[in-house]
Amino acid sequence: MAPVEPVRRVAVLGAGSWGTTFAKVLADAGTEVRLWARRREVADEINAERRNGGYLPGVELPEGLRATDDAAEAVHGADAVVLAVPSQTLRENLAGWQPVLPPEATLVSLAKGVELSTLHRMSQVIGEVADVPMDRVAVVSGPNLAVEIAAEQPTATVVACPDHDRAVAFQRACSTSYFRPYTNVDLIGIELSGACKNVIALACGMAVGLGFGDNTASSLITRGLAETTRLGVALGAEPMTFAGLAGLGDLVATCMSPLSRNRTFGERLGRGETVAEAQRAAHGQVAEGVKSCSSIRQLAARYGVEMPIADVVHRVCHEGLAPAPAAVELLGRERKPE
Amino acid sequence: MAPVEPVRRVAVLGAGSWGTTFAKVLADAGTEVRLWARRREVADEINAERRNGGYLPGVELPEGLRATDDAAEAVHGADAVVLAVPSQTLRENLAGWQPVLPPEATLVSLAKGVELSTLHRMSQVIGEVADVPMDRVAVVSGPNLAVEIAAEQPTATVVACPDHDRAVAFQRACSTSYFRPYTNVDLIGIELSGACKNVIALACGMAVGLGFGDNTASSLITRGLAETTRLGVALGAEPMTFAGLAGLGDLVATCMSPLSRNRTFGERLGRGETVAEAQRAAHGQVAEGVKSCSSIRQLAARYGVEMPIADVVHRVCHEGLAPAPAAVELLGRERKPE
Repeated sequence: MAPVEPVRRVAVLGAGSWGTTFAKVLADAGTEVRLWARRREVADEINAERRNGGYLPGVELPEGLRATDDAAEAVHGADAVVLAVPSQTLRENLAGWQPVLPPEATLVSLAKGVELSTLHRMSQVIGEVADVPMDRVAVVSGPNLAVEIAAEQPTATVVACPDHDRAVAFQRACSTSYFRPYTNVDLIGIELSGACKNVIALACGMAVGLGFGDNTASSLITRGLAETTRLGVALGAEPMTFAGLAGLGDLVATCMSPLSRNRTFGERLGRGETVAEAQRAAHGQVAEGVKSCSSIRQLAARYGVEMPIADVVHRVCHEGLAPAPAAVELLGRERKPE
Repeated sequence: MAPVEPVRRVAVLGAGSWGTTFAKVLADAGTEVRLWARRREVADEINAERRNGGYLPGVELPEGLRATDDAAEAVHGADAVVLAVPSQTLRENLAGWQPVLPPEATLVSLAKGVELSTLHRMSQVIGEVADVPMDRVAVVSGPNLAVEIAAEQPTATVVACPDHDRAVAFQRACSTSYFRPYTNVDLIGIELSGACKNVIALACGMAVGLGFGDNTASSLITRGLAETTRLGVALGAEPMTFAGLAGLGDLVATCMSPLSRNRTFGERLGRGETVAEAQRAAHGQVAEGVKSCSSIRQLAARYGVEMPIADVVHRVCHEGLAPAPAAVELLGRERKPE
C-alpha cells in the first residue's frame, strides 16, 4: 500500500442532523468541508445563514462549512467522502455518486444497520457499489447523539478502517477539543454494534414504557451486548470491540438517552401503542431498530447464534407479541452461568 | 470437595436498604430467612409491621421474613450467611460474629469496595477474618438498585463463587420471578467491578453537574470500564467478567440512575460544591467512591496500571482539583487506538 496522505478536504454527503453535525466537527478541526444537501433550500440556508433549522435548530454552523446540492461539486478533489444517508437508501444513493468519486478517497460510513435484502453491512455495500477494496472503507461510530455534539459537549468516538494508517489520517481530520476519536481496525465489530444497538434500545424503551427502572434497562443493555458479541464473533469480529466506544459506549447512549429515537419508539410500544401508532407519533418514521431486528434475526439464524432479545423485539414489532409477555419470557429463561 | 447441600436457611446480617431488600428476595424465593438488625426497634418494626420504614419506606415485606437483633440467633443453623454491612466496617463486624458462624455455611458478601488499610477485596477480608477457604466465600453483584428490586422490577444479577456448585446452590435460593441470578466463578473480577463502579459514577455525576449530556456519560462509562478491566486483568480476573452484569450492568445502573448516591454526590461536585458541602447535603455520608478512589489508585500504582479516570476523581476529591479542568485533562490525552 502507498503511504496514506493527510486528509485535508472532505465531502459530507447528507445534511440530516448527524451529517450536518459531523461536517461542523470537521470544520472545527480545521479540515476543509463541503456538505451536500439533497434540497437546494437546505444548502442555501447553510451558506447564507450558517444554520440548518430543519435538523439542528439553534445551532450556529462554523464559517468554513460550505454546502451545495451538487454532489459532483461536493466530492471534487476530496481526500475523504463521508456517507451520511440512511442505511436502507445507501446503495441507491451511492450508485448515483459512484462515477464522480475521487479515485483515491477514503469512503467513510456514518450509516448504521444491515441491508434488509442482502444482509450486508454498510461497508460491504460501499465496497460493492463503489468498487473499492475494503481497506479504503472506514466507519465512524460511538456514543454520538448529534445534538449533544452540535452543542460541543465532550464525547469520544471510533474511526475504524482495516488500514490503520488510513484510520489515523481520518482521525486527525476530525479531532477537536470536544470530539475525541480513537482508531480501530475491526469494521465488522464496529458495524454490528451499530446495527444491534437500535434493537436493544427498542427493548429498553419497551421496559421503560412498561414502568420498569434502571436495573431492568441495565440488565437488557448487558445481555443485549452479550448477544451482539456472540453474533459478531460468529461473523469474525474481535470480541473486545463490543466493550469499546462503538459497542458499549454507543449502546448506553442510545438506550439511556431520552433523545434516542429507538428508545422513544420502544417506550410507546411498551405503553401499549401499535407499531403503526408509534410511527404516526414519530412523524411517519419507523425507528431503525424495527427494520434491523429482522435482518439481525436472519443473520443470527444463518450463523446459528441465539439472540433472545432481538428475537423478542422482532416478534413484538412484526408478529403481534405484546411487550408484557415478552418481558416475562425473557426473564423466564433457564438459569445459567453468565 | 463434598457435594454442596441445597441452601434452605439463610441469615442476612445488616438491615439497611440492600440487606432488607435481599432478605425479601430470599423469602420470595421460598427460602427461610432471618434478618439481623443492629437496632432492636428496626427488628421489632419488621416483625410487627412487615416494614423497614427507615430504609425501605412504602415496601411491604413478606410474611416469612423474620428479624432479630441477636446475630447468634440469626445465623444458627444457616446454610448461608449474607454479609450486608458497609465495606469499611465489614472486618470489625465479622470478627464479632466469627465465633457463632455455622462451620459449613457459605459466606456471601453484598459489600462493595476495597479495604482502605489493606487494599484487600471484601472476599479476602471474609476469608481472613472468618478463617475459611475461599471456595466457601461468594459475592452477589449486579445492576441492583435496592428500591427497584424492592418494587419487584425485573433485574438480573451474578452469584459468584470459586466453587461453581456452591454458586448454583445459592443461585437457586435467591431466584424469583423478578430477580434472575447468573453464576460466575471469577470473584476478583466481580469485586473489582463493584469497587470501581462507584468511582466512575462520581466522574459521570461530575460531568452531569458540569452540564454535559449522555454522550459524555457514555464515553466515561466505556473508558471507565476499560481501565477497570486493565486493573482486574493485572490482578488475575477474567476480562469477560467486566462485560457482564456485575461489570457493565452494575456500572450502567450506578452511573445513569438518579437513585445512585455516588452519581448524585458527583453531580454536586460538578456544580461546584466541595466534598464537605456535598457530604452535608447527603446527611453527613460521604459517597463510597470518595473512599474507594484512594484504595483503587493505590492498587493501580502497585500493579503499574494506568487509570486516568480514577486518578482524576481522586485529585478532585482529595487534592482540590476542580472538575472543569479535570474534564479538559481527560479529553486532552493523546489520541490513540481504543
